[in-house]
Amino acid sequence: MPQSFESATALTPVDGGFAVDLDPGWDVGGGILNGGYLLAVVARAAVEVSPHAHPVALSASYLRAATPGPATLAVTPGPAGRTLQHAVVVLSDATGPAVSVQVTTATLQDVPADHQVPPPAATPVEDCFSIAENAHLAPAGMPVPGMSQRVETRLDPLTARWALGEFTDEPVMRAWVRFTDGRDPDPLGLVAFTDVLPPTSWATGRLGWAPTVQLQTLVRAVPAPGWCLVEARGGEASDGWVDEDYRVWDSTGRLVAQSRQLARLPRS
Amino acid sequence: MPQSFESATALTPVDGGFAVDLDPGWDVGGGILNGGYLLAVVARAAVEVSPHAHPVALSASYLRAATPGPATLAVTPGPAGRTLQHAVVVLSDATGPAVSVQVTTATLQDVPADHQVPPPAATPVEDCFSIAENAHLAPAGMPVPGMSQRVETRLDPLTARWALGEFTDEPVMRAWVRFTDGRDPDPLGLVAFTDVLPPTSWATGRLGWAPTVQLQTLVRAVPAPGWCLVEARGGEASDGWVDEDYRVWDSTGRLVAQSRQLARLPRS
Repeated sequence: MPQSFESATALTPVDGGFAVDLDPGWDVGGGILNGGYLLAVVARAAVEVSPHAHPVALSASYLRAATPGPATLAVTPGPAGRTLQHAVVVLSDATGPAVSVQVTTATLQDVPADHQVPPPAATPVEDCFSIAENAHLAPAGMPVPGMSQRVETRLDPLTARWALGEFTDEPVMRAWVRFTDGRDPDPLGLVAFTDVLPPTSWATGRLGWAPTVQLQTLVRAVPAPGWCLVEARGGEASDGWVDEDYRVWDSTGRLVAQSRQLARLPRS
Repeated sequence: MPQSFESATALTPVDGGFAVDLDPGWDVGGGILNGGYLLAVVARAAVEVSPHAHPVALSASYLRAATPGPATLAVTPGPAGRTLQHAVVVLSDATGPAVSVQVTTATLQDVPADHQVPPPAATPVEDCFSIAENAHLAPAGMPVPGMSQRVETRLDPLTARWALGEFTDEPVMRAWVRFTDGRDPDPLGLVAFTDVLPPTSWATGRLGWAPTVQLQTLVRAVPAPGWCLVEARGGEASDGWVDEDYRVWDSTGRLVAQSRQLARLPRS
């Protein structure tokens, strides 16, 4: 039975912040923990010390790969107002600081959007392609990410031809996602979903790991229950750097989260 | 003679960082300093302590409006590698911290892009609309931003109908920009250009100030001399929050910078 998201992000208060036991199951392959998971842990710590209920903006610098197991979160709350609170959270493992994050918390209201970004046309979830169930199709040399046991990820076949060894010029990936533990999406879960897919460079045939340098995640609304649709789109790729945009829509088709990251391109 | 960008971002070393004299000329109206200008000051401080030449990623939390005049920058360098260095920079005025920023510095190489984002079709600069020269057209009650004396901003008439009191559903704004002091664009200047336009909500008739909560800026290449084309696009607007995407292309049509910010929507 895989660890639940709730327990994988559970915090124990300590002096100046929290302790956490980082779940090794959230690996992207090769024992490296997923950046979205780490950011969700950080978000939970920020909400814990805030008068507000939700993480609405998080900007993270990934200093180095964090090791699974015991870690600490140093939380420095900033000024809190009626609308929002800022805080700085630094996640450290036994070796030292691994992720440094500016977090803004607020309380999202259940109101319709004034101006909306509609979801793309995606293949229905029942015709999509489960990463966990198709591990035998993983490109040669690529480990199947352990986190596919934490988040059920159904790739849209329209953007998953790379899994069959067919590459394209368009660095786009789309998938339906939900937690395997039965948890419905919520603002904390959305934070994890904004970095949940394989690197978009895989679509173009560059199959290595693409370490995130900085990631900005915005949570825009409390999601409805059910599957979320995630689309990641690579932008400029140049000089070893690439940017990726994520958008996440809930089961009603509302944009509920988005992110942008700067990452290093895989060498291969 | 307006102050040059060079002198408006000039730093004096002090214990733990730098002192700076924030140029009141970079106001967006009502004595409020532009977030892009403040971020450029921060970027300069980070480059100053880095083995690398350029700011490539900056994520800022705007804690409150900074006051023009004397300010300090506390710089905490993180681990430095062959490829990049992380640092945290906090800009404080007499009242205390105003902007807290995670900065990644690196050295951008002059190489062609692998995957490019082409510029949009824009009106040629000679047919565009200078903000400074058309101050008499400013919407009633809106002060003309002092920073239009620092950055020559020529709005594309296709996205500037709001200046004539005609509003649209599309929160998009486009302009050609260059420094008025004759400085050619460079990575530091690009940082300022990623927050240089009026709020995109003005295009839809919401004419108030839209304070930035978090801003992430990426600098992707060293720009060629000449005008830069800047496009800002509003995304989801909901519950008082709005996100804005900026893209900046140089005079050769190469994407050289981009940003995303979460801001509060103007009340009006």
